[in-house]
Amino acid sequence: MRFNQPIPLNEIATIIGARLIGNTQASATGINEIHKVEVGDLVFVDHPKYYDKCINSAASFIIINKETDFPEGKALLITDDPFEAYQTLVKHFRPFNPSTKPIADTAEIGSDTVIMPNVVIGNHVKIGSRCIIHPNVTILDYCVLGDDVVIQAGTVIGSDAFYYNKKTNRDVHYKKMLSCGRVVIEDAVEIGAGCTIDRGVTHDTVIGKGSRLDNMIHIGHDTVIGKNCLLAAQVGIAGATTLEDNVILWGQVGVSKTLTIGKDAVVMAQSGVGTTLPGGKAYFGSPAIDAGEKKKELVWIKRIPLLWEKVVNR
Amino acid sequence: MRFNQPIPLNEIATIIGARLIGNTQASATGINEIHKVEVGDLVFVDHPKYYDKCINSAASFIIINKETDFPEGKALLITDDPFEAYQTLVKHFRPFNPSTKPIADTAEIGSDTVIMPNVVIGNHVKIGSRCIIHPNVTILDYCVLGDDVVIQAGTVIGSDAFYYNKKTNRDVHYKKMLSCGRVVIEDAVEIGAGCTIDRGVTHDTVIGKGSRLDNMIHIGHDTVIGKNCLLAAQVGIAGATTLEDNVILWGQVGVSKTLTIGKDAVVMAQSGVGTTLPGGKAYFGSPAIDAGEKKKELVWIKRIPLLWEKVVNR
Amino acid sequence: MRFNQPIPLNEIATIIGARLIGNTQASATGINEIHKVEVGDLVFVDHPKYYDKCINSAASFIIINKETDFPEGKALLITDDPFEAYQTLVKHFRPFNPSTKPIADTAEIGSDTVIMPNVVIGNHVKIGSRCIIHPNVTILDYCVLGDDVVIQAGTVIGSDAFYYNKKTNRDVHYKKMLSCGRVVIEDAVEIGAGCTIDRGVTHDTVIGKGSRLDNMIHIGHDTVIGKNCLLAAQVGIAGATTLEDNVILWGQVGVSKTLTIGKDAVVMAQSGVGTTLPGGKAYFGSPAIDAGEKKKELVWIKRIPLLWEKVVNR
Repeated sequence: MRFNQPIPLNEIATIIGARLIGNTQASATGINEIHKVEVGDLVFVDHPKYYDKCINSAASFIIINKETDFPEGKALLITDDPFEAYQTLVKHFRPFNPSTKPIADTAEIGSDTVIMPNVVIGNHVKIGSRCIIHPNVTILDYCVLGDDVVIQAGTVIGSDAFYYNKKTNRDVHYKKMLSCGRVVIEDAVEIGAGCTIDRGVTHDTVIGKGSRLDNMIHIGHDTVIGKNCLLAAQVGIAGATTLEDNVILWGQVGVSKTLTIGKDAVVMAQSGVGTTLPGGKAYFGSPAIDAGEKKKELVWIKRIPLLWEKVVNR
Repeated sequence: MRFNQPIPLNEIATIIGARLIGNTQASATGINEIHKVEVGDLVFVDHPKYYDKCINSAASFIIINKETDFPEGKALLITDDPFEAYQTLVKHFRPFNPSTKPIADTAEIGSDTVIMPNVVIGNHVKIGSRCIIHPNVTILDYCVLGDDVVIQAGTVIGSDAFYYNKKTNRDVHYKKMLSCGRVVIEDAVEIGAGCTIDRGVTHDTVIGKGSRLDNMIHIGHDTVIGKNCLLAAQVGIAGATTLEDNVILWGQVGVSKTLTIGKDAVVMAQSGVGTTLPGGKAYFGSPAIDAGEKKKELVWIKRIPLLWEKVVNR
Repeated sequence: MRFNQPIPLNEIATIIGARLIGNTQASATGINEIHKVEVGDLVFVDHPKYYDKCINSAASFIIINKETDFPEGKALLITDDPFEAYQTLVKHFRPFNPSTKPIADTAEIGSDTVIMPNVVIGNHVKIGSRCIIHPNVTILDYCVLGDDVVIQAGTVIGSDAFYYNKKTNRDVHYKKMLSCGRVVIEDAVEIGAGCTIDRGVTHDTVIGKGSRLDNMIHIGHDTVIGKNCLLAAQVGIAGATTLEDNVILWGQVGVSKTLTIGKDAVVMAQSGVGTTLPGGKAYFGSPAIDAGEKKKELVWIKRIPLLWEKVVNR
């Protein structure tokens, strides 16, 4: 999440009740989770295992539960519960102000865009020109749609990330990490009916220019879909995954989190992608492998009875 | 379904035009289908194959199409078509009165609960405190939500059970058994966008305290999800199944009906669960088996060509 | 798409700027894509590979990009870009006039039909008698529902076909072929919550009398479901496929495009149907094969370690 303007660190420290050391005169430009940090960002860390990664990431300012060494020019904000400090900052800078109107006063809608009946458009949403938003679509706060975007009926853009902090010693094991990211849909994208596209946790979920999504597709938080991708019905993609340009996923394909499917790859129907796949090839199976290999495998399986015959009867 | 107050059996007999024998002075406290009966319940049976099971179940009062023996203290209501008698009772005690308002006058909504635009809340729904109901959600008659429940946009709570009486000698083969059960969502549950949770046929579909459901999850009628379960996107669970506490189902898992997945079990993505699975273990595959065994199986399949080579070329 | 009345060919030629040769005095009764043409139809073709098929199809009038031979009584409409000519005709005869009201003035709704809150019903929709349309359902322009139809909450009827003209030399590779077909739902059909049923491209998507669809089912454009079919939750069927009567698909089954599943066939859960399947049998697997064969295959796979043992250790 970008702040509207840089926020002085001592103001941040006051909000979360942290002790500030290091570059105390600096200002933060945004807050992110560790997978998505940029220079000027605040980030939080509460487990010693990840201290080094966080302190040496692109992030400039680290909310942390222990004083430790850090590079020149950075700052630490020391507090007992960095996760709660993160939640406090999200609530402060991105407060949940549910609109009482179907289309929020702060939404900006471009020229020649058609909004059909019973659509809900949240606060600070931006929609470009010549879009068609079909009935019963929900577009939640801060999401951005380019020009010439079509969203079929019943689709949800900007639902919360499915992203939890798990501690089994609590009565309720899973505590939601508040989502303050967005969904950004580029120009000329078409999205089918009954899809759900989650916002990023702190960053953006992106659907690239000219991509086509069929019905009932789920896209997880912070996932980035390239340009001119084609996704058939009932595909599901978990969080923080990347599809490069021109990727084709056929029906009911499932894709796991934080992996990459390379440019021009094709994944056949019902396949399950659990690892990064190089581009320019076809894949099949659950787990998905090279489609040619998979088809040979299916033939080999059918030869087992013959093999048994050869072994047992000679 | 519990009646609001006990109903004298002779009143029931009059409503359905049945002949009453046995404990004719008793009153019924509810009506259930045979999988869910309790003492005081009415139940119906129309096939001799199930007579014994019904008459000796916990149910006290049996709507049946033939006079037969029955235990002391119970009663029979004899009528030609017990299925139609059941439908008549449901229509009588749980009449379909569609609300003409998006939020029914009889709905009860707790303090500090946020209802966002274009939500529909049916008759006699109860929602606790500090809940967030996102846009375009539908919560149908008699469903119950605890405190601190979050429902993301476009989700449907309380759709009818997919439960039919099949007779191929009718022009329309499948006749719907009317649903009069509820969906009960316990405290601190979070449900994603675009989910559908069917009501019980006569009993409750339950989502246990602290459980987390991602987007586009389908939960069938009378299914009971334990506490602190985690269900990833596009999971589907059929009717009358039980997930014990802390069960994790990864994306696109399918679970068949009337089975149990034990406490702390983990089912990997795209697996298909067709039988009861003991808790505390990981499962994979369609059909799902022990995950370690499944992974070995995948390795063995890759060895078939080598095996063929050994057999054919020596 | 049927025109409301036959349209003289010279009027068509003027609209699309085409040169008309052959039976120039004739009138067209409708426009279709090549898979669905009837006598009196206009059809378009732009690739020499398909010229013969189109010119010799049932279609009477061919929009084409080259003058060529054609049978007596037919006519050619010659223009540089037949695809754009088709789009122009669709826009002309089926203009997109989004209703600004949730229920369009031109919608016709039968007696004793219940329309629940927040339903959207588009232009020229026809709904029969004694139907129940649950909350947040969307029924788009020109769709037709028979009598005694039930649509559970959140379902979308008549979303656009997922059907594109692909040219990778364009900035945006996929250009949508405008849908002007309908969804026709016959009498006594019940459709679950959160389903999406796409309209035909130029013809009809049909759900046959008495069929039952569970929740979150996707039906592609121009697909025809027979009578008394039973489809369990999360089934997906691609475009232009046929299910004959009494077909049963269990949960999460995927079916590819332009194939036929024969009468009384049963496809087991999570199967993937990629080819036409004869009726009267059970199928299982992805790709789906005879269920008995598939089960034997699963047993054979478990014997590979034993086979290895026999081969290696003797």
